[in-house]
Amino acid sequence: RIDGQRLWQSLMDLAKLGATPKGGNCRLALTEEDRQGRELVTGWLRDAGLTLQVDQIGNIFARREGRRDDLPPVVTGSHLDTQPTGGRFDGCYGVLAGLEVMRVLADHQITTEAPLEVVIWTNEEGCRFVPVMMGSGVYTGIIALEDALAAKDRQGDTVAASLERIGYAGDLPVGEQEFGAYFEAHIEQGPVLEAEGLQVGAVTGSLGLRWFDVVVTGQEAHAGPTPMPYRRDALKHSAALLGEILELADPYQPNGRVTCGEFDLYPNSRNVIPGQVRFSVDIRHLEPEVLDQMEQALRDVCVRHDEPGKVTVELRDVQQVPPTPFDKELVDLVRSSSRALEIPYRDIETGAGHDAVFVSRVAPTAMIFVPCEDGISHNESEYAKPEDLEAGANVLLHAMLGKSGV
Amino acid sequence: RIDGQRLWQSLMDLAKLGATPKGGNCRLALTEEDRQGRELVTGWLRDAGLTLQVDQIGNIFARREGRRDDLPPVVTGSHLDTQPTGGRFDGCYGVLAGLEVMRVLADHQITTEAPLEVVIWTNEEGCRFVPVMMGSGVYTGIIALEDALAAKDRQGDTVAASLERIGYAGDLPVGEQEFGAYFEAHIEQGPVLEAEGLQVGAVTGSLGLRWFDVVVTGQEAHAGPTPMPYRRDALKHSAALLGEILELADPYQPNGRVTCGEFDLYPNSRNVIPGQVRFSVDIRHLEPEVLDQMEQALRDVCVRHDEPGKVTVELRDVQQVPPTPFDKELVDLVRSSSRALEIPYRDIETGAGHDAVFVSRVAPTAMIFVPCEDGISHNESEYAKPEDLEAGANVLLHAMLGKSGV
Ligand SMILES: NC(=O)NCCC(=O)O
Ligand SMILES: NC(=O)NCCC(=O)O
Repeated sequence: RIDGQRLWQSLMDLAKLGATPKGGNCRLALTEEDRQGRELVTGWLRDAGLTLQVDQIGNIFARREGRRDDLPPVVTGSHLDTQPTGGRFDGCYGVLAGLEVMRVLADHQITTEAPLEVVIWTNEEGCRFVPVMMGSGVYTGIIALEDALAAKDRQGDTVAASLERIGYAGDLPVGEQEFGAYFEAHIEQGPVLEAEGLQVGAVTGSLGLRWFDVVVTGQEAHAGPTPMPYRRDALKHSAALLGEILELADPYQPNGRVTCGEFDLYPNSRNVIPGQVRFSVDIRHLEPEVLDQMEQALRDVCVRHDEPGKVTVELRDVQQVPPTPFDKELVDLVRSSSRALEIPYRDIETGAGHDAVFVSRVAPTAMIFVPCEDGISHNESEYAKPEDLEAGANVLLHAMLGKSGV
Repeated sequence: RIDGQRLWQSLMDLAKLGATPKGGNCRLALTEEDRQGRELVTGWLRDAGLTLQVDQIGNIFARREGRRDDLPPVVTGSHLDTQPTGGRFDGCYGVLAGLEVMRVLADHQITTEAPLEVVIWTNEEGCRFVPVMMGSGVYTGIIALEDALAAKDRQGDTVAASLERIGYAGDLPVGEQEFGAYFEAHIEQGPVLEAEGLQVGAVTGSLGLRWFDVVVTGQEAHAGPTPMPYRRDALKHSAALLGEILELADPYQPNGRVTCGEFDLYPNSRNVIPGQVRFSVDIRHLEPEVLDQMEQALRDVCVRHDEPGKVTVELRDVQQVPPTPFDKELVDLVRSSSRALEIPYRDIETGAGHDAVFVSRVAPTAMIFVPCEDGISHNESEYAKPEDLEAGANVLLHAMLGKSGV
């Protein structure tokens, strides 16, 4: 059994790095805060007796040898980067639950049959650098290493330069580490488990996501003397367009989602009629056919609002992740571990993308969810109960040992 | 008669400082670019034989003595700061037309009865620092010096610190310089003069303006797992609100204007449901009663969209400038000068705020407009014809001499 108190303490210690005024975290990928987080956690992993390697995209692999080193490792992990106004659990929980599993095995001097590993993936959040889930995407070959290294943040800083700066441009070729199985523990980030009073979700698969940018172009002009009929106001045009886009998931409830999370105005000056707007669109659904329908609806709305010569609307593709089912055997191992530990659980889908979604393309994969308060995450007030985090980590321990053999 | 070629050359030389890729200018108030502009133009003013003083808010007064120094000076001028994507003429024309008047008088060794002055006002545009028309507002006592010095840009930099940094924190007490009359030459920034084939507008007064901020507060949450009905999406709420706000001038055409020029999203991350939006509202009209009605409509819309516990809407007052009539005698001097020079002109109102609007509260004031291409300004492609700029400067010369006496 894992030590819930020690797990909680590690989470709270990590949360001091990049702490925000409202009790959350801002450790954007590959910033100084991310470096501090990586240093703290890799120190802990070394103390637990693991050997570390860093690959070319900055993913960290911490290994605990087993009795049979010809077997591929049973791996767990997640990410340490956060949203700009992120919480203390999203990502960190998965890494530190893995650390806690290693600590418990060290405490009891247990050696497994197959080796075990904890992995820390680079830039899962995708808010500083697109594509999202970058480290696991490059690891699995879904994203090309060169593309990832060349990705830029809004200030024009690249992933390659940021990796160098924080000292995590490793030399392990990406994709070299083969996994026998991959488990990821994570907070649910939705309201289901809490509402049903359950402590664990056995995640059976993930919603697909499609990301786009919409660029609306009018003409800047002076807010004072320019008569209303002369205006080519990119913001006014966007208001109507946004209204329609944000309703396009309505016919596809309860599983359809649409979000516009980024919205940038140009030149963004109080007395200038906006000349250009760029906003992001994120659509998600479980079924590829429905995603196609939602995407088509988005395309239609953009075409309908495109008025060449007045205000134009352009839709740009950004990223796609298809709906992904997890490995039946591993999901079953999560269910049976929960039962064995008498932890109330249910099957669940994930609406968030996770590194596990990409990893599942190259290795058997499952996820373990624990409830989070009011289903709120990507928010400084994100909260999960110590006892639920403990329960999830116990299921992780059992499932990993079940797969690796003791 | 002024030298139109020399005036044009000075405009083009100044436009090299803070030049933008699309042929415009970015010399935001009190930045390094603004400093460079001030250095260039004050050098020219000194070469034309004027003596300079700088006041505590960074306004620059360049004086040419007259025969009777007991008379208050006849003053002209405008501003050198620009919008982030501003043009080459807005503001600069008024300063350089004043310079050209001084150069012509020096060329012909003419001494006027009353002294003459050229003034360069600080931060007219109001886009880096609010309030707008700051230098003239402090000069006339409408804005308190302490408030202006404490104003912050979005990065938290103050006017006081910026003035020190660029070396324009003068020690002349503000408001010390008394004006006998104030003329300001400016591009129209609207379509009227061009459409009617006229070269000069005798500006009879200005539209009033009222500035507000609207703050829409919901709750950040994850774009993936958060079901649509659980969302408190500040952007979705703003889309509907914006649509209504941007229509509130419709009943008050042709003179009503409404613009939302700034729009900031928080946390502005692709996979986070927006928790907060702040946008600016700028309403303008010629009649105070209509401004009251428009403001009331704005208040009503905000109250109607305020949903406590879900998404709240708050309206904040930012600045007000009442509609302002100019001095009848000086406006007449602009008309008669145009007639004397056989320059086609008409009476016109200004929809843009100008330093002249504030100065008119403490001194007789008038403005001289010249056409600008397609009525476009606050845009990098802003353009005015050399011959129109020359015509306006000639009217300025005549009107100033008419007032100062030769
Ligand atoms: N788990 C998580 O927050 N992932 C970010 C990627 C997404 O947008 O779903
Ligand atoms: N002339 C000019 O562009 N003034 C800026 C102030 C305003 O917004 O009217």
